Parts: sequence; C-alpha cells; structure tokens
Amino acid sequence: MLALIQREQLYASHRSMTPSAIGTADEMHLSAFIQASPNHQIKGMWKHPADETSWGYRTLRWWQDLVRTLERGCFDGIFFADVLGTYDVYGASREAGLRGAVQIPGIDPTLLIPALAACTEHLGFAVTMSTSHHAPYHTARLFSTLDHLTGGRVGWNIVTSYLSDAERQGLGEILPHDARYDRADEYVDVCLKLWEQSWEDGAVVLDAEADTFTDPAKVHEINHAGEWFTVEGPHMVEPSPQRTPVLYQAGNSARGVEFAANTGEVVFMSVPGNDRGAAVVASLRERAAAAGRDPEQIRALQVARVVVAETEAEAREMRDEWSRLFSVDGYLALYGGWTGIDLGGHPPDTPIDDIEANAIRTQVERWKLEDPERTWTVGDVARRLSETAGGLGFVGSPASVADQMEAFIETTGVDGFNVTTAPVPWGFTQVVDLLVPELQRRGRFRTGYEGSTFRENFFGAGQRHLHPTYPRRRPR
Amino acid sequence: MLALIQREQLYASHRSMTPSAIGTADEMHLSAFIQASPNHQIKGMWKHPADETSWGYRTLRWWQDLVRTLERGCFDGIFFADVLGTYDVYGASREAGLRGAVQIPGIDPTLLIPALAACTEHLGFAVTMSTSHHAPYHTARLFSTLDHLTGGRVGWNIVTSYLSDAERQGLGEILPHDARYDRADEYVDVCLKLWEQSWEDGAVVLDAEADTFTDPAKVHEINHAGEWFTVEGPHMVEPSPQRTPVLYQAGNSARGVEFAANTGEVVFMSVPGNDRGAAVVASLRERAAAAGRDPEQIRALQVARVVVAETEAEAREMRDEWSRLFSVDGYLALYGGWTGIDLGGHPPDTPIDDIEANAIRTQVERWKLEDPERTWTVGDVARRLSETAGGLGFVGSPASVADQMEAFIETTGVDGFNVTTAPVPWGFTQVVDLLVPELQRRGRFRTGYEGSTFRENFFGAGQRHLHPTYPRRRPR
Repeated sequence: MLALIQREQLYASHRSMTPSAIGTADEMHLSAFIQASPNHQIKGMWKHPADETSWGYRTLRWWQDLVRTLERGCFDGIFFADVLGTYDVYGASREAGLRGAVQIPGIDPTLLIPALAACTEHLGFAVTMSTSHHAPYHTARLFSTLDHLTGGRVGWNIVTSYLSDAERQGLGEILPHDARYDRADEYVDVCLKLWEQSWEDGAVVLDAEADTFTDPAKVHEINHAGEWFTVEGPHMVEPSPQRTPVLYQAGNSARGVEFAANTGEVVFMSVPGNDRGAAVVASLRERAAAAGRDPEQIRALQVARVVVAETEAEAREMRDEWSRLFSVDGYLALYGGWTGIDLGGHPPDTPIDDIEANAIRTQVERWKLEDPERTWTVGDVARRLSETAGGLGFVGSPASVADQMEAFIETTGVDGFNVTTAPVPWGFTQVVDLLVPELQRRGRFRTGYEGSTFRENFFGAGQRHLHPTYPRRRPR
Repeated sequence: MLALIQREQLYASHRSMTPSAIGTADEMHLSAFIQASPNHQIKGMWKHPADETSWGYRTLRWWQDLVRTLERGCFDGIFFADVLGTYDVYGASREAGLRGAVQIPGIDPTLLIPALAACTEHLGFAVTMSTSHHAPYHTARLFSTLDHLTGGRVGWNIVTSYLSDAERQGLGEILPHDARYDRADEYVDVCLKLWEQSWEDGAVVLDAEADTFTDPAKVHEINHAGEWFTVEGPHMVEPSPQRTPVLYQAGNSARGVEFAANTGEVVFMSVPGNDRGAAVVASLRERAAAAGRDPEQIRALQVARVVVAETEAEAREMRDEWSRLFSVDGYLALYGGWTGIDLGGHPPDTPIDDIEANAIRTQVERWKLEDPERTWTVGDVARRLSETAGGLGFVGSPASVADQMEAFIETTGVDGFNVTTAPVPWGFTQVVDLLVPELQRRGRFRTGYEGSTFRENFFGAGQRHLHPTYPRRRPR
C-alpha cells in the first residue's frame, strides 16, 4: 500500500514535469515476452497451481486482464512469440511436444491484438510473423490493419522460421539458414515499399463533388521485381498511424545479427552479463552504424527470466518451483525443434557423455571448465540449456532485482528487458506491483506514457514513424 | 418509443415461453452484409452525409457500435466480404477503383472479429477467406483461433478468388474457374480433417502427476496427401466450441452451386423473386440431397438491399439518394474485376449499342424485351447490373418491407436475407428499430437468442457442431 501511495505521488509529480523531463536516457524499457499457448519459456510451469495459461491462452478476458496489468505497470509492450508447425525432432516424434505443451496447442496471436488494444491506451503489441509462410502483400495488409485498429500500437517480430515440420504441413519449403535471411531481406523491402512509398499522406481526399474518395495520383505502384518476389502494388490500405510497425528482430547467428543491424528497431538478445555480452551489444550497434544507421536508433532488449517477491526467500521459493516442475522432455522437445538435435530415448539421469551427440558435447565441455568433477546428465543439460536460451535469471526482492538489472545495463549497454516469468499472470503482477515502483523510485523507469504509439514508447514522444536515418525508409 | 415498449413486452413474454416455443420454422434469418472497406455494395454512397464508413471502417469503436446494434436486433450474424488485390480491369487501370473506393482501401476483416465478439454475446461473425492465397494448415488454425476467442461464433465464407490482379501482387496463380473449385474442395477437406478428426474430445488432460498436458494418444495426424495439398497434421489447436466454423458459400456458376450443395451450411444467393428463383433454391436443395445431405440442413439467404423508414415516402427518398449518388465508374470498376469485362473509356450517356462488348450486349437484349423502345446507356446498364448483382431491393415502411420479405420467402423458399444497405450505420439501425419489431410481431423473427454459438443461431439450440448427416464430417 505504501508502494502504491508513493507511486501515486510520483505520478502526480511527473504530471507537473515539463515534457522534456519525461523519458530520459536513464530509463530502461520493459516488454513482456509470452506466447498464445499454455506454456511459454519456462517448461513445466503449466503444472503450478497459480499458472492460468492452460485455459487462459484461448480466452479473451484472460488476456485483457493481463494487458491491463502490464499497462498499469507502464510496460512498453507485450511481445508474442509464435510458430507454425510442431516440434517433432526429439525422439523422432510429436509425443513429448504434446505432453509438454511445447507451443502446441497454440492459437494465432495476431487475432488477439485488436481486442487487447480495445481495453488499453498505450501498451504496444509486437507479434511474430514469419517471412516463410505468407505472401508479403498479405503481411503488409495485416500489419497496416493492426496499426489502424490499435491506433499505431503494433510491432512486427520478423522471423524466418526454423521448424522443419512446416514442410510436412504444406507451408512451403524451409530454405537453408542464410538463404532464409536473404529472402527475408527482400520480403521486408517489399513490405516497406508498400507501407512507406505507395500511399502519399492525404491520398484519401473524400471529394464528393469530383466523385473521388482517393486521388489516384497520390497512390503509387511499387513495381517490385526481385529475386524472390514480384509485387506490383499499390498497397491495399491507406497510411496507418505508424505506417510501418515497430520492427523487432532477434538475430543470434552472424547472418541474423547482420539482418537485425540492418533492419531491427528493437532487437532482442540473450547475452551474458559480462564483457562478452557488452561486446555483442557493441557489435550490433557498430554493424548498424556501418549500415548507415544511427546506432542510438536501436533498442536492445535482453531476454530475462524474472521472479520478484517481497522477500528474497519468497522469490527463491518460486524459483525453486521452476526447477521442481521443470519438464526435461518438454524442454528437449523445444530444443530439438530449434536445433535439429535429438536427445530422445535417454532417461533424464543418463550421463550425457554416454550419448553420441557431438553438438551438445562441445557445449557441455565448456560447462565442465567451471567444475571438471561434475557429471552432466541429460536432465542437467536440459536445465542448463533452458537457462541459457531463456535469458538471465533475475530473482529476488524488488531492490535486489532492480540492482541486478541496473548492473546488467551498466555492464552490457542494453536498453532494457524482454521479461519472461512464471506462473502467469502472477509473475507479471509481481513485476508490476513490486519491481516497477522500485525502478520508478530510482528514476530508471517511466511513470507514465509519453506518446500514443508503440514507436514513441521506445523512441520518445513525436517519433511515430521510422527515423529519418533509417536507411531502408525511402523518401515518400 | 411505442415500438420500443412493444418490443420490451414481447421480450418479457418471450422469456416466459418454454424453450421449444423459441425458434420456429416460420422464423427467418437475418445477416448483415458488409466489408471492412469504406463503401460496400451500393457504390457512391460514401458521399452521403449520414454514411460513416469512410472513416469508420478502420476504427474499432465504430464497428463495436454497429455490432451492438445488430445484436440488439437479434441478427444471426454479420458477414464480411473481402478480397486481396485491386480492381484494374475497367479502363485497364486502377484509377476508377481508387476514386470510387472499390474495395480499396480495405483492411483484413479477420482481425476485427475477436474485438467485436468481446462486446457482444450472441451475434455470429462470418468472414471471407480465400482458398487461393493461404495454406490450409494456416487457415484451419486461424478459424480455430477465432472460434475459441469468440466462444463459438465464427463462420467461414469460402471463396476461391477471382481477381486476376492477385497474380501481380505475388499471391500465386489464379487457376481457371472450375479448377479453382476442385482445389477448394480438397482445401476444405484438409481443414475439416484438422478440425474434426485430429484432436479427440478430452485430449487435453492436464495431468500434472504424469507431466502430461495433452495425451498424445488422443491427437492424430491427418496424413492428407491429395492432388493439391500434402498436410501431415496434427492440427495445432485443441477443439474449439464449434470445431468447424459455420460454412458459408455463395456459388452462382454450375460448379459453384455444386460446391455449395456439397459444402455450404449457409448459402447466400441472389435469385429473382419468382418461379425462376424458386427453381434455383429448390435445385440447390435437390443437389444437396443428391450428395447425401439433409436439404433442411442448408440455410439459403437471399442478398437483399433494404431501405426501411417510418413512411413509404421517407424510404423512397433514401432510395432516390442511392440513384443520385450512384457512381457509374465505381460500379463498372467493380463489375470489371468480377467479370473481366471492360466498359471503360465511354461516358455514362453513351448508348451501349455503340460499344463492342458482346458479353454485355446479350444481357441488354434480355432487358430490351421489357421495353423495346428504350435506349440503354452505359450509365443505365451500370445501374441495372448493380441492382441485379446486389440483390432485390426491399424499400418501404416496416409493414411494406415485411410483406415483401414474407412474399419472397413464400415464393422462393429461401430461409432469410443477407441484408445490405446504405448509408451505414443508418440503414442497419432502421432495420433494427423498425423492421425487426414488425417481423417479431408477426412471429417471423426471433425475440431472443436460443443458443450461444453461431451454428445454433441458424440451426437451433444444441446444434453446435456440423450436423451428423453432413457427409464431409467424418467420424471422430
């Protein structure tokens, strides 16, 4: 209650600030990382009694409550992961994926967004859409529609898709990794042309006298003819508040980072909280600068697993639940889909050295340097992989987690965090009610929203459109 | 006000009825026919001061108000037309389409539906999705998602797409007409297998003891391998309230009617209000019976243009506005896209006989039988085509329009109407406030909703799933 009062006071004082005092460089960005599926990153937590995603994920009211909580906590946005296809590498079967609710069942997250925008005013909505399964003309219309219906609060997480199963579902060929990115480059070009160059501002003239709704002279074909796509245009949709959705990217491979540096406005990463992490973030910004971009026009968000509670002990208690409920099979099914490496057929207590699986062994050899005596079992490996891939863990009291986050930013140079937690919504409610007020007291997090669009949440009031230095934004 | 009180009384008395008294064979079905675009069927009416679609179509609040009105009027549902691509046949240009707002600008209607379901409880949502532009695995997930998020209130208007422009937008090849339907047949098969056969009821077991969210033994691959599609399955989504969306179809060609008779649960038609119309409706039901279906398990809806007002004079006045504001160019751009016939380059007062365009001339020769003296200009032809394609016009006072509708049903055997009107929302508000109470007084329209799903609106309480006699529903 004290925290609430203090927040109210802060909010009141914020209102009397001049606009320039809002949104300082010291402030971090927070995004909620989730999937429209029962059980996102922290595998097995659907079993926790406080987790509601098992039924909530397919229910509008449940999502509406969650996004209202996030907006109360001034989050920049909510970020939906997504896949098309199933996880069938582990044990050469879909069984573990089904048992573990590994992104199946899963609904189409794009369809949630307007309904969630209807009950919020500022929160942004980033959604995953693959460049491998849909025509760019369709995707461009989809995001323009979302941007209209949300009043400019949509972002696109550009992915190229990795599930080999997609081919078996009739979703088209999954190209080799780098070719997927080449194709994605051109795909984004087509979309940018449709969003940025096709319709001039003021093309809709509504001139009843002249029987003219849209002035054809102000609507242009794009006449794109490339290696992968031929799209004549024009775009089907008149300009939306942001024109182009906020472009999210999460490249980890060399080619992926190049794509992110060229294309992403918000790049989410999973780097260690040390000099190596700092080097990765610096390299991203250097590559962006090399591509002609202002490196300050990228927001780097670290994926972070957060548990915050009133006391350290309470937070650790929940963190222990993550371990207790962790599903080895479920995680390895996920890992199999990501990497193509099948660790199936071995009970969790099998020593990893007994298994022929070179790609993993190299990884494990690195971990052994920390403690050469330790025997790594399949279960240990799954846990460790899960923690590495799922981002740092920040566990503790509000002050402790705030300290950890500040230190992480100080060390690595990221701009904020893409927060994943469990159980849901408990984990997010804790962040909003306990951590956010602590960050606000420290002047490290906004106490209100500066603008009305998603891009303004990240880049400040007034910046509704791609930045003028964005090289792939061509003049209109 | 009097009408309102009477309706309230009727509603009160309805509440005391036994359930079996609700939903009789005498009751007709009403659907609102619209597009997520400024200017639907009645071309030029965006210019009317009372028409709000120019800005409303891209605004959630506007749509929410409209669907609340329709639900107040106990409509079965709202039906969204849609296209991907532009109208570029008329004058070999996109100019007339843009000037006349001919389905451009236009947003993706699927994204509206959950937000509109969130502010209603019973209204159904039928949405157009083409079998030509998306993989069936994606489409099946999309409709399962919508069915979950709406609580079982979605329908799929199955179309095969006709816009040749789609090829120029990189949306894939537009096959010849009949081949499109052959492919659509298989496409629907794939979707039905995913919806009806892949997940058994009770597959989601939530067995924490056994670390099992979904029982893999109750989820099946579909292993579809056909002429057009190879889809292994399983479906990505657990069973939704209806499993399969209400299947809408509007076949007019011989192959189209065959497809509708085999596949459609709700078939919308545009037939004349005479014996010829009756023959078309009877033929649809006969074909359905020949395909092994119960012909009573098809709801035939006539597309009807309705203007209703307190007085005949007021209604005719608005009908005259349709003529006054009619856009010949806009309509002929639409017609060009539908038919491939280009009547461009001729002012509206050009006699049609002066133009080389045989496909139209045959049509006009038939109309000349009515009045051999009349000279048909391009403008006259556009108006006449618009009225024919857009469905019957029912214009008048509530009693008069109710009489016309009853007579039409009596003559033709249709089950109700897919209502199009302008300006919007005025035209629909008039129907809800004036016509619906009149139909209710006559016992020809529901006074409340019987079930909670879209299929129950059409087929009665309890019928949430495809009817057991539906031949393409295979046993689960």
